[in-house]
Amino acid sequence: MHVTDLIRRKRDGGELQRNEIEFLIEGYTRDGIPDYQMSAWLMAVLLRGMSRAELAALTESMLHSGQVLDFSSLPAPKVDKHSTGGVGDKTSLILAPVVAAGGLYVPMISGRGLGHTGGTLDKLESIPGFNVNLSTAAFRSVLEKCGAAMIGQTDEIAPADKRIYALRDVTGTVESPYLICASIMSKKLAEGIDALVLDVKTGSGAFMKSEKDAVFLAELMVETGQRLGKRVAALITSMDQPLGHAVGNSLEVAECIEVLHGGGASDLRELCLILSAWMFLLGKRARTLDEGRSLAEQMIASGKARDKFREMVGLQGGNPGVIDDPTLLPRSRYQSDVASATSGVVTEMMVEQIGTAGVLLGGGREKKEDAVDPAVGIIVHKKLGDKIAAGEALCTVHYNSAERFERAKPLIVRSYTIGSSFAGQKRPLIGRVIGGESAVAAK
Amino acid sequence: MHVTDLIRRKRDGGELQRNEIEFLIEGYTRDGIPDYQMSAWLMAVLLRGMSRAELAALTESMLHSGQVLDFSSLPAPKVDKHSTGGVGDKTSLILAPVVAAGGLYVPMISGRGLGHTGGTLDKLESIPGFNVNLSTAAFRSVLEKCGAAMIGQTDEIAPADKRIYALRDVTGTVESPYLICASIMSKKLAEGIDALVLDVKTGSGAFMKSEKDAVFLAELMVETGQRLGKRVAALITSMDQPLGHAVGNSLEVAECIEVLHGGGASDLRELCLILSAWMFLLGKRARTLDEGRSLAEQMIASGKARDKFREMVGLQGGNPGVIDDPTLLPRSRYQSDVASATSGVVTEMMVEQIGTAGVLLGGGREKKEDAVDPAVGIIVHKKLGDKIAAGEALCTVHYNSAERFERAKPLIVRSYTIGSSFAGQKRPLIGRVIGGESAVAAK
Repeated sequence: MHVTDLIRRKRDGGELQRNEIEFLIEGYTRDGIPDYQMSAWLMAVLLRGMSRAELAALTESMLHSGQVLDFSSLPAPKVDKHSTGGVGDKTSLILAPVVAAGGLYVPMISGRGLGHTGGTLDKLESIPGFNVNLSTAAFRSVLEKCGAAMIGQTDEIAPADKRIYALRDVTGTVESPYLICASIMSKKLAEGIDALVLDVKTGSGAFMKSEKDAVFLAELMVETGQRLGKRVAALITSMDQPLGHAVGNSLEVAECIEVLHGGGASDLRELCLILSAWMFLLGKRARTLDEGRSLAEQMIASGKARDKFREMVGLQGGNPGVIDDPTLLPRSRYQSDVASATSGVVTEMMVEQIGTAGVLLGGGREKKEDAVDPAVGIIVHKKLGDKIAAGEALCTVHYNSAERFERAKPLIVRSYTIGSSFAGQKRPLIGRVIGGESAVAAK
Repeated sequence: MHVTDLIRRKRDGGELQRNEIEFLIEGYTRDGIPDYQMSAWLMAVLLRGMSRAELAALTESMLHSGQVLDFSSLPAPKVDKHSTGGVGDKTSLILAPVVAAGGLYVPMISGRGLGHTGGTLDKLESIPGFNVNLSTAAFRSVLEKCGAAMIGQTDEIAPADKRIYALRDVTGTVESPYLICASIMSKKLAEGIDALVLDVKTGSGAFMKSEKDAVFLAELMVETGQRLGKRVAALITSMDQPLGHAVGNSLEVAECIEVLHGGGASDLRELCLILSAWMFLLGKRARTLDEGRSLAEQMIASGKARDKFREMVGLQGGNPGVIDDPTLLPRSRYQSDVASATSGVVTEMMVEQIGTAGVLLGGGREKKEDAVDPAVGIIVHKKLGDKIAAGEALCTVHYNSAERFERAKPLIVRSYTIGSSFAGQKRPLIGRVIGGESAVAAK
């Protein structure tokens, strides 16, 4: 088998066989195949696409380039959720305790902030003492004890993805939906889960700005997961405005705690209930979506989800006191409002700019090696359709550096479009569901 | 300027500016830009193509990556011919002395055998003592003295092409007409010529099997040369059968000497007269193609071209005696006929297989580092439309190893299709001319 022949076949729009894709991925991971051949192949994949069989083979090869966790001895199904990322997207911190309280296992391996979006690990680390760098053994132990555990990617998980992602980053091959799918799914399936719910975001704050692109990626991920023997469904959800009100690490943890206490922003709560319902359904803990939703509501109303989060935080070294007293979370030195110059109604939000403002405050990374400030962020008061008077606050900014605040402020102001009337949202919070047919049919 | 942005722009079908292409080529040649970024860009170019302005900028950047010879002090125009390569394609050895005898300068930098096709340098080296590795100063000296000099590519000529070609070879990016054009033209224009005639071959023995591809490449090369200020025309010529009768290094030199003596195969002689005519026309030595052709005929009939070749061979260290006594050329130990099993007429030739048979005999290279046997080869007796009786010789094979002969023989037999009648050739020896309009209009 010659690498150049495989590159040429993909270049000409042909299909590679499963063993040929394995040869490429194994060869690359073990250093036999050089970067310059892999990057030519990746560019050919980006421009020519892949068949579903090729994509499944690629995902499986990347998955098996490292350790695949085995939680088959646990007495209930293992489920997880993955989001393609957005601004204020903090559902993982709510879903893990809700679904674990409902009787399923949630072995969640998450990422850090990327570009304008936050990362679950950065949020968790704003809880004093919380350790996301558990060994596999410790991860298993927390999972066994409380049903949920949340860590970062280890070197043992999908090393092929790590190498390929670094190469894609410098060769203009990040944006391929096929390569994005293989990257996400190879890491998620390494968690040893039975079912996965995908939250694929679209809109001005998402990576996939167009709904068509989001649906296509969702279809790829669902089919790939199903081909690899998992129960998978994807929800297309709106990122036309931030989710909830809080953007920033400790601010988002505090907002999650509100939801776990039965309150919180209605859109955030709603999305968490729907995602939980799907996790219960695919995890066979509920027979219908309605049953799954009721179970999620009960877990919150009864305080069981909150207790589960307290337990998990404690087991991972964090201060469980934050659940009952969120003032124990890091707090910024300064808070200032950003006011609207005009009166009217919010007709559009450039959500990515709000995310970028959060990064500029220090809540995310401008360069990979930057440290994250857990305390800073933005509380978004005005969202789509909200009326506002001139001089009224659009947001409250939490910051530790006046200079950073001055950089972030104009982005926040510009991200709002204030008009005279609002025709209604472009799309509902939760749109199409892909791949859920079989599960729903089982009602 | 970020390399990744340039890769992404080309990937998305956009156009790069001249300074951006210079940045890529200079960066790559001087080691700043790694192979893996260049190969991703090359694949994007292969799949997305280039504008004519981009192609001219690429060619010029590659040209200026090294030394550009300056023969402007010579008292007559400098012209050259480049062929895209075929089987039995030996015109350079005839054209250089004919055109130099006619009063123009021919500073020819040639290549070695590649795949199934032979190389001018390998042919020249079959002349005992002939040195193709002249310094630039020696090249200039031979050119000044006799009007023609023939050498191999030096390290100083278009080093960017050398690096890029090596990378293309292992990343499936050889076949792009844009990259082929930039590779050829950057090397040829480094010769410091005023005009260039391109012999773009099509048919079963050419790299461009389809005439459409050949015409497209020809158009790219003509326009690129013209954009860089040169007079350029391209002839689309047939490679549906070997050119002349000889395939193999010393056999081809002997056939060229026959033509220079006024004899030789009619197709080889005809193509040389037409190519010479174009060189005289573009080099402003003739006002019309007919005048150019007459001049070429005179140079052969008068013996001036033969004398010029004798002079050049001598100046480059070769034994000039071979021109008058070709038996001084290396000769193989064995000669055997390959006979036809059936009677009929030759209706088709798989010319690439005949070229490959020549390589198997030792006349070309199976691996880059292989040495070439100057004496071996094939004399093709039967060509398209020729009648043959069962048992009659198709070819005579010249060889030094019975084992190699046995490997080559079946390829030769299979390359012939013998039918009951021949409808005529698919295309004439010399087809469309591209880019010659302005020169012809000046008649």
